[in-house]
Amino acid sequence: MIIVLKNGTTQEDINKISGWLSRYDVEVCPIVGAETTILGVVGDTSSVDRTSAFLSEHVDKIIKVQEPYKRANRKMHPENTIVDIGGVKVGDNKLVVMAGPCSVEGEDQIVDIAKHIKETGAAIIRGGAWKPRSSPYSFQGLKAEGLELLNIAKAETGLPIITEITNPMHVEKFIGKVDCFQVGARNMQNFELLIELGRARIPVLLKRGFSNTLEEFLMSAEYILSGGNENVILCERGIRTNETFTRNTLDISAVPALKKLSHLPVIVDPSHASGMAWMVESLSMAAVAAGADGLMIEVHNDPKNALSDGAQSLTYEMFESTMKKLKLLAAVMEREL
Amino acid sequence: MIIVLKNGTTQEDINKISGWLSRYDVEVCPIVGAETTILGVVGDTSSVDRTSAFLSEHVDKIIKVQEPYKRANRKMHPENTIVDIGGVKVGDNKLVVMAGPCSVEGEDQIVDIAKHIKETGAAIIRGGAWKPRSSPYSFQGLKAEGLELLNIAKAETGLPIITEITNPMHVEKFIGKVDCFQVGARNMQNFELLIELGRARIPVLLKRGFSNTLEEFLMSAEYILSGGNENVILCERGIRTNETFTRNTLDISAVPALKKLSHLPVIVDPSHASGMAWMVESLSMAAVAAGADGLMIEVHNDPKNALSDGAQSLTYEMFESTMKKLKLLAAVMEREL
Amino acid sequence: MIIVLKNGTTQEDINKISGWLSRYDVEVCPIVGAETTILGVVGDTSSVDRTSAFLSEHVDKIIKVQEPYKRANRKMHPENTIVDIGGVKVGDNKLVVMAGPCSVEGEDQIVDIAKHIKETGAAIIRGGAWKPRSSPYSFQGLKAEGLELLNIAKAETGLPIITEITNPMHVEKFIGKVDCFQVGARNMQNFELLIELGRARIPVLLKRGFSNTLEEFLMSAEYILSGGNENVILCERGIRTNETFTRNTLDISAVPALKKLSHLPVIVDPSHASGMAWMVESLSMAAVAAGADGLMIEVHNDPKNALSDGAQSLTYEMFESTMKKLKLLAAVMEREL
Amino acid sequence: MIIVLKNGTTQEDINKISGWLSRYDVEVCPIVGAETTILGVVGDTSSVDRTSAFLSEHVDKIIKVQEPYKRANRKMHPENTIVDIGGVKVGDNKLVVMAGPCSVEGEDQIVDIAKHIKETGAAIIRGGAWKPRSSPYSFQGLKAEGLELLNIAKAETGLPIITEITNPMHVEKFIGKVDCFQVGARNMQNFELLIELGRARIPVLLKRGFSNTLEEFLMSAEYILSGGNENVILCERGIRTNETFTRNTLDISAVPALKKLSHLPVIVDPSHASGMAWMVESLSMAAVAAGADGLMIEVHNDPKNALSDGAQSLTYEMFESTMKKLKLLAAVMEREL
Repeated sequence: MIIVLKNGTTQEDINKISGWLSRYDVEVCPIVGAETTILGVVGDTSSVDRTSAFLSEHVDKIIKVQEPYKRANRKMHPENTIVDIGGVKVGDNKLVVMAGPCSVEGEDQIVDIAKHIKETGAAIIRGGAWKPRSSPYSFQGLKAEGLELLNIAKAETGLPIITEITNPMHVEKFIGKVDCFQVGARNMQNFELLIELGRARIPVLLKRGFSNTLEEFLMSAEYILSGGNENVILCERGIRTNETFTRNTLDISAVPALKKLSHLPVIVDPSHASGMAWMVESLSMAAVAAGADGLMIEVHNDPKNALSDGAQSLTYEMFESTMKKLKLLAAVMEREL
Repeated sequence: MIIVLKNGTTQEDINKISGWLSRYDVEVCPIVGAETTILGVVGDTSSVDRTSAFLSEHVDKIIKVQEPYKRANRKMHPENTIVDIGGVKVGDNKLVVMAGPCSVEGEDQIVDIAKHIKETGAAIIRGGAWKPRSSPYSFQGLKAEGLELLNIAKAETGLPIITEITNPMHVEKFIGKVDCFQVGARNMQNFELLIELGRARIPVLLKRGFSNTLEEFLMSAEYILSGGNENVILCERGIRTNETFTRNTLDISAVPALKKLSHLPVIVDPSHASGMAWMVESLSMAAVAAGADGLMIEVHNDPKNALSDGAQSLTYEMFESTMKKLKLLAAVMEREL
Repeated sequence: MIIVLKNGTTQEDINKISGWLSRYDVEVCPIVGAETTILGVVGDTSSVDRTSAFLSEHVDKIIKVQEPYKRANRKMHPENTIVDIGGVKVGDNKLVVMAGPCSVEGEDQIVDIAKHIKETGAAIIRGGAWKPRSSPYSFQGLKAEGLELLNIAKAETGLPIITEITNPMHVEKFIGKVDCFQVGARNMQNFELLIELGRARIPVLLKRGFSNTLEEFLMSAEYILSGGNENVILCERGIRTNETFTRNTLDISAVPALKKLSHLPVIVDPSHASGMAWMVESLSMAAVAAGADGLMIEVHNDPKNALSDGAQSLTYEMFESTMKKLKLLAAVMEREL
Repeated sequence: MIIVLKNGTTQEDINKISGWLSRYDVEVCPIVGAETTILGVVGDTSSVDRTSAFLSEHVDKIIKVQEPYKRANRKMHPENTIVDIGGVKVGDNKLVVMAGPCSVEGEDQIVDIAKHIKETGAAIIRGGAWKPRSSPYSFQGLKAEGLELLNIAKAETGLPIITEITNPMHVEKFIGKVDCFQVGARNMQNFELLIELGRARIPVLLKRGFSNTLEEFLMSAEYILSGGNENVILCERGIRTNETFTRNTLDISAVPALKKLSHLPVIVDPSHASGMAWMVESLSMAAVAAGADGLMIEVHNDPKNALSDGAQSLTYEMFESTMKKLKLLAAVMEREL
């Protein structure tokens, strides 16, 4: 931690600030320049409240040097973490494709989609049961019934299940019925939910909030990890920018960045990133070429009549075409699919 | 709703799309231009799923014409809503100042601050008991004890209480102990929480998410209103932009915009917007000059030793100076304070 | 400047980096912590290329401590700069209102508007002759003829002229015909133009680019100042954010921030910030309440038939109403108008 | 164009607005709904000033339906445009890599780099002579001398030259010395420069402004195209977002989006997008996988001592490794390299 002092700060003032810092387990090293004096603070600065010291009339600004996340940090854990979702390993050499509809709409729908995506090479079935929607008047999902239908699809195909959880009160009823929790972008900083998921021992796929930094993203992962649940998967799904042609802007750089900063697996969701089915293949290719460990893709048996997100769902034909190209690309990346 | 068709769409195609729309209670009016054909769709289009129709190979884009919020819309409710928080009317001619520390830290602290702000002209005491923090390692609030301490401060001063709620499981235990729920920026789209608050009959101050549009903000208010709770106050607290000098960027235009689009009271939080105590007075003045119905300001008896947000908390002296200037401004705005 | 080294950096490596830095007039002070070693670099670090040193395999990151702008910095020039535009002092106690149409459209129009705004209390006439437009097919301004018409309006009213310059080749022909150059948002980083204006001795009103930081804004001012032209006025006109209800988002915090960081006068343009005439009064009030030194407001004799920006231009009645309220506010701010 | 009228608009009002629109070559079709009345306006609406009509007291909002760009629009020109830069075809099946240093620094440097990149497979040499820099105190390029040195490198290797132009006054002196003009992100809306380049007959690589939409980007291309110069190449180089880990955020979706909206070739600059050399390979792969027609990559013989952008320049070894992987990927994409 670096504390930049204002011009005109005296030695006495410096002593006062150093005294204030002595409550923490840190060492203070002043560097006196012609124009600016700075204090280098070394040791465990994570407990020094960034904002309080700022208040001193002699402090110009405080700059953090160390990443605030520990358990998610690759520096503390150099080898890749591999997360096991019902037998499917995410973060390993083999690319993992999670596919399925935005919402579970009925038994025929989800079973048919599960069979199709399995044949086409997907390893995990996705489908929303509780749907967070911007409007209270939109379809909110089949809820508990949706969870049952996903389990029928699993029984038919053997595909593990990932589905979104939106309420800390639901954790109990999801256990035993899902193989991986999904936390949506709007809940990335729903800390009460993250704390509950940290207590569970089921994997969590955490989506990046649509306007959150990578540091905030990793701090949210830290909530789950520090609760004792080490099975966290990071999912980039597009951020909000000035560009409105796409639903969101896929931050493709987040893939190499997260792989460097953290040891956790990184998945990309091209469907929410673009909001347009015709663009999903291009973004899927880009994600794998950038080093992603897998993809989450919306696929629907009848997108025109989907109850939600029809515009961004692939038809079976589009999904087959995309998987075919991805297999060729996997070889170039020295990965399997 | 406007549906723009692609070039080359035939009359037969138009009939097919009109047929698809006939499942809804709407009327379709085609307008055929030389280059573009559009379909005007009138009636109750709120249930037409925007994304599904998009999928038709003949649809170029779909444009919504009506605001998706109903109960929050001034068009449906022309007169101002006035929300009563323990006897204090928000949205009326009198400006309302809510003040207090970021976190409740102890009995002496909160009682002392409550007495001071009351003398200085604030009408409501604020203070966090459950604190959502980006880091799991930061101070998380005194929780239930904090709620008790706020009630001691209320008993001493008569000031109604506003405090943040972060978990739908907590609603029961807050009832009877708070005069107004606060929903923080990170929970603006925590729909499960909003649904619970819609069932309660206590006022809710809803903060705008740091990257949410005004339409999304009003849709979140709609969740509470449509649940039957009409006591919603909107709070602008700064949005995330490319500028990093301030903690957030106060969207001052949101004040006149929200007053025009909605009948709900509008409050501004200059403390979180700026993140810097020295800037709070200027932003408070700007907010009232732009037409805000009140302010939420962080005030602390000892900001240098605050457990959170010390840098943005006003000292008593600063708060007095700010209130003095605000009183002069209130007269210019033909409002009381 | 702070250089954060990677873990595992040896004393020998530190010596190597210090050696590399010895080419500059700086002193290097290493601080060795348990987890991290940092190098404090003091002296004139402005010439140390930030990016080059970054490349060393031992450098984790480089953090700048000093502001990169010198002449624009209040630390180097504590008293306010007052800029004289044809006898009107900007940055002094008296608020300055610059008003007029987006584009000069004809003699009757500009003379009529000039007379009206003068009676209503404006001190400077604005009007575009060369208009930068997003579309090559939009009205591009009357160009040289517009400049002549502005001078007729000046002859009739005595109001000094401010008008936009978009091309370094035009500087010569503007001299003697304008009292203040205006640099538009899209040209804030048109450094070739800034360099030419630094050579001129006529005041420059520099608008902030719609996605530029305050630091970049002050660096662009620095281009003009370092060329020898000290008459620079800063103008906040809204930035681009996720909110699309307004044309731009007025960054009201920029007013107190720029007044603190710099000694240059600060003007606000509520017309471009909002893009909607009905919002201009509220934003004008907010700007003055936040400490602005003046305003630039679009006023038109017939907004419905304006050739550009009609939607955001005030009618005469609206302008009169706004000025009336501003005069009351000026008194509260202890300023004149 | 759609004009949404306010509630309570009468038939007489509609007639008045239709009358106002009769000055343009358009047809007006009213659609009267229970809650809202809209006017469909068909024909050539490009000359209807969007903002003026807005002003009518009966107009709620105006929505544009057609893209404002014509010559850049794929709808008007379905086949791909191929731009010839000194014999190198951009936009054809063969991928084009433009490589070289940020700045031309000396003869040995630029000739050595040119030889290396040619051997490695690049087709065009890039290098800055006039450098737009945020700070007036940074290295501004070798200017005219830089242009001469680029021509020496061309004479030695046969590689065509691309270099940045920042001033409309320079066009004459660049002609005959460059094979392609480059317009930087900060000048994307420097319309005076674009107009001059529209008059030249040399290809122009236009970089997207760091906060501009795709529509604005295509409108800037339209400036050049409508001036008569059809040789425009679009270059995505990252946009400014809330994420600060990378220098900019590469908008990978822009690649498929621009290929769909326009017929012009699309190039990606991963060096400026990331600002970090180690990330360039990943982003280059992503760009080609997403469908880009080529890349512009910064390569330097000695990045640690580069006068600008050292941190994002590839060493020869890194460039060779990147090109090797790109060749494998090109085969998957059914393209050559």
